[in-house]
Amino acid sequence: MTSLQRTILTIAGSDSGGGAGIQADLRTFAAHGHFGTSAITALTAQNTTGVTGVHGVPPEFLEQQISTVLDDIEVHACKTGMLFDAANTRTTVKALKARYSGKTIPPLVCDPVCVSTSGHTLLAPEAVQVIVTELFPLTTLVTPNKPEAELLLGRSIGSLEDMVQAAKDLLRLGPKAVLVKGGHVTAHQEDISRLKKQGHHVLGHDSQENTRILVIAPGPLVVDVLCESGDVVTVFARPRIDSSSTHGTGCTLSAAIACRLAEGVSVPEAVLQATAYTHLGIATAPEIGHGHGPLNHLHSIVRRDIPPRTSNNPHPLTRLLIARNPKHWKDFVEHEFVQRLGRGTLSRTAFVHFIKQDYLYLKYYARAHGLLAAKASSFSLIASATRTITNVLTELDTHRALCASFGVSPEELESTEECIETTAYGCFLTDMGLQGDTTKLLITVLACLLGYGEVGLWLKSTCDASTLESNPYRRWIEDYSGAGYQGSVRLGLELIESVAAADPPSPARLQEWCAIWDQCTRLESAFWDMGLKAGEETSAA
Amino acid sequence: MTSLQRTILTIAGSDSGGGAGIQADLRTFAAHGHFGTSAITALTAQNTTGVTGVHGVPPEFLEQQISTVLDDIEVHACKTGMLFDAANTRTTVKALKARYSGKTIPPLVCDPVCVSTSGHTLLAPEAVQVIVTELFPLTTLVTPNKPEAELLLGRSIGSLEDMVQAAKDLLRLGPKAVLVKGGHVTAHQEDISRLKKQGHHVLGHDSQENTRILVIAPGPLVVDVLCESGDVVTVFARPRIDSSSTHGTGCTLSAAIACRLAEGVSVPEAVLQATAYTHLGIATAPEIGHGHGPLNHLHSIVRRDIPPRTSNNPHPLTRLLIARNPKHWKDFVEHEFVQRLGRGTLSRTAFVHFIKQDYLYLKYYARAHGLLAAKASSFSLIASATRTITNVLTELDTHRALCASFGVSPEELESTEECIETTAYGCFLTDMGLQGDTTKLLITVLACLLGYGEVGLWLKSTCDASTLESNPYRRWIEDYSGAGYQGSVRLGLELIESVAAADPPSPARLQEWCAIWDQCTRLESAFWDMGLKAGEETSAA
Repeated sequence: MTSLQRTILTIAGSDSGGGAGIQADLRTFAAHGHFGTSAITALTAQNTTGVTGVHGVPPEFLEQQISTVLDDIEVHACKTGMLFDAANTRTTVKALKARYSGKTIPPLVCDPVCVSTSGHTLLAPEAVQVIVTELFPLTTLVTPNKPEAELLLGRSIGSLEDMVQAAKDLLRLGPKAVLVKGGHVTAHQEDISRLKKQGHHVLGHDSQENTRILVIAPGPLVVDVLCESGDVVTVFARPRIDSSSTHGTGCTLSAAIACRLAEGVSVPEAVLQATAYTHLGIATAPEIGHGHGPLNHLHSIVRRDIPPRTSNNPHPLTRLLIARNPKHWKDFVEHEFVQRLGRGTLSRTAFVHFIKQDYLYLKYYARAHGLLAAKASSFSLIASATRTITNVLTELDTHRALCASFGVSPEELESTEECIETTAYGCFLTDMGLQGDTTKLLITVLACLLGYGEVGLWLKSTCDASTLESNPYRRWIEDYSGAGYQGSVRLGLELIESVAAADPPSPARLQEWCAIWDQCTRLESAFWDMGLKAGEETSAA
Repeated sequence: MTSLQRTILTIAGSDSGGGAGIQADLRTFAAHGHFGTSAITALTAQNTTGVTGVHGVPPEFLEQQISTVLDDIEVHACKTGMLFDAANTRTTVKALKARYSGKTIPPLVCDPVCVSTSGHTLLAPEAVQVIVTELFPLTTLVTPNKPEAELLLGRSIGSLEDMVQAAKDLLRLGPKAVLVKGGHVTAHQEDISRLKKQGHHVLGHDSQENTRILVIAPGPLVVDVLCESGDVVTVFARPRIDSSSTHGTGCTLSAAIACRLAEGVSVPEAVLQATAYTHLGIATAPEIGHGHGPLNHLHSIVRRDIPPRTSNNPHPLTRLLIARNPKHWKDFVEHEFVQRLGRGTLSRTAFVHFIKQDYLYLKYYARAHGLLAAKASSFSLIASATRTITNVLTELDTHRALCASFGVSPEELESTEECIETTAYGCFLTDMGLQGDTTKLLITVLACLLGYGEVGLWLKSTCDASTLESNPYRRWIEDYSGAGYQGSVRLGLELIESVAAADPPSPARLQEWCAIWDQCTRLESAFWDMGLKAGEETSAA
């Protein structure tokens, strides 16, 4: 998904219900495009209504998981969640210290999970002291919620000022930064103003400055308080959402912070992005289960319908366009007109009619590439469009010579009356050129470019040398199967595939492209039909 | 990510290294937009080079995980992976039967994991018989690889014909369908032709029919064989990839099949899509670890940079455009020209110069909406564009009246010479209208629409009634802060946000939009600069 894939290790519990624990962590990592590894401290049997059982993992096996991962895989950030008990907390510290002895430990986020959203105690009391004395000193950021901060400090927290003081006091315990989360505290705009007056930096609550047109009614807020070295306090505020889909909020937030730290982002920026991610996860949560449901971790990604380009499939978009409606494509490239042309049995009248109309069509085709050049924002696309126009102009000479060989004079060719099939197809090209962007126009001209290439190769492969020798349409077949035209086909393929890979379309946009492609293949078939019909009319007359 | 989010349960082992087991399953579910739950049968301490330890989960705790999930959460498909031993296999069967007693069990994919990619035995021998006799009868599809099929049947498999026969024989053991995976068998095009001649349906290996232009050199193939009820055989073929990133291939494939079955897709179609997904996972695998690395599970998704619309943030695109460069926006909407206008201290010459140039600009603005109507593919967008043109034409009367009140005659207004700032901004609108699609054009006209709305509201909020009364530019302020103009602002916001949500841009496309927005805000500031400068020149003269 991203070119900067990072690897992150979570050391936490497993939530069978999928909303919290390593499951939430791994889904958050994936939604950020990162690869997750995990060491499980304890299994929980859990759903959205609560925890029905916990199975602790023996310390030696926890140690084995952590060291096996770190022995082989370079990790760019770590997070800890539910550590279960004092032994597993000590084991975690020991394993990390062993691996990073004498080396820089990657950014480590410690979510000091003590109690589940549903109220289940997830940490043995004696483990709290181990977290503080042994894990905190290794920690880049510790992320307690209000009850956890209260437990760690042994005092109650009421106001936002209490949260600020708690963050400062927790910082003294050894971590490089502390985020006291305010999910359990409701704040209001005036609280934010007060904190600002106290000199604290406020982030995250979208500034209303210069955005009166976007203003929405002020409601209750959630505030998180970050304290960094030197008691630098940053306050993160956002609208409070009235939702029961909050299971795994803490896991998700700390996992999202770990993602950003793995990317090399600063702590305040990581917290800002992660709180926004988590907020949207709650705001767009699916309805799953009967209790506190999980967040939507996937709001930050969208489906990619065109497979990536690989050496086995360098033309995934073109394959997809053809495969979506193979019948229309086959009707076009294996049209009766084409088959008769290949056998040399196509009536002369039909062929002459076709090449005269094709001459008129080529004018639209060239003009469409003129539009493409006009719409291009890069010299390379201007060059590509211009090259095609030049090729068409060269093709014209061939066309005129071919017409002459079938007894059509230049004057007759120029005065050809345009058939409705030619108008339909030609004007469709220029209309798409007016309507859309350069990619839409490239798709529009693609079916013609590729289809004639396919017809050329197919006819060439079905004719042996001797039948080709006597085929009256030999020149036409050799032109479209020849190196010149096939070179243009390859350039066109490379262009559209690279454009689509650099700017992958949404499912809706891809649907539009498919509709255009389909329309073009049908217009191509209608064009051959027109030729055949002209032949029949003449022979009937 | 998707409107059709499904929930899937995996019953399998945990792989600390993240490439296989429930970790691969959950990542695959996420990449398909689905929600995963998990019951862990055993923990492994594992990395890309091998398994260093296994910790079995007690059967009663496995049972507790499964029943806790199923008691609360509706599941649309299940898959089983490594079941560890006979007891946990029996427990799995028991828990599923208990939950679905008298009800239809959701589609169940059984990946009979016996041996890891790195060669570690993952299933106790006595469990094999339990899988066959107790789990197979519940199973929609069982997906053994060659060694697993050999183990299950007690005979060796060499040829593709052996695979077909193995699939048929395994079907007799009770599952509704069997997929014998050929990752360990290399096949060639002639093998496929032979299987076709034997009457088997071949899917997945992109047909070369009618795609001579896309042809790539034929290489070795991987073939999977599906056998369904009535011994209906379907063969899936695809190019073999020479890669060591195959850790978790089986987990990934069965998880991807479970996703498609949860969506209601048929078994052959699910296998077709899942083999393509897995193939691309190998083809685009990241380099992680020193042994058999994990697949890339995220090739099917792309980052969504515009947050989803929520009640707390109904205008995420507009907020993002402003927030990407708040200084340019602020420079525009709080420009010195605007501030003087609000205080009533703006020189008359500056204002007159501005409104005369604005009159010329409005022609471009109307024409840009003419282009928008011409490019629109829906009547609603044609209507919206036309409404804007009508509004501009109405605004013209106001404009003329305003000019008249400042002593500018209709003749003087019409003969105004266009300043370079007006030409730059106006032609930028029409150029974007030529270059891009309707969305790009909507973005281009947005900064003007919204900016004047913001300026209107800001001025209105800073002027009290008495100062406004005596402000010579009162009429202008009231026009832009008034209900009519603000109504247009709201319609414009709704239109662009709904368009962007229906067709989310790729990161590259969003980057283009941001560049356009930024250009427009700078052109707006230059427009105000021009007004100020005209005032200064006159007073200096």
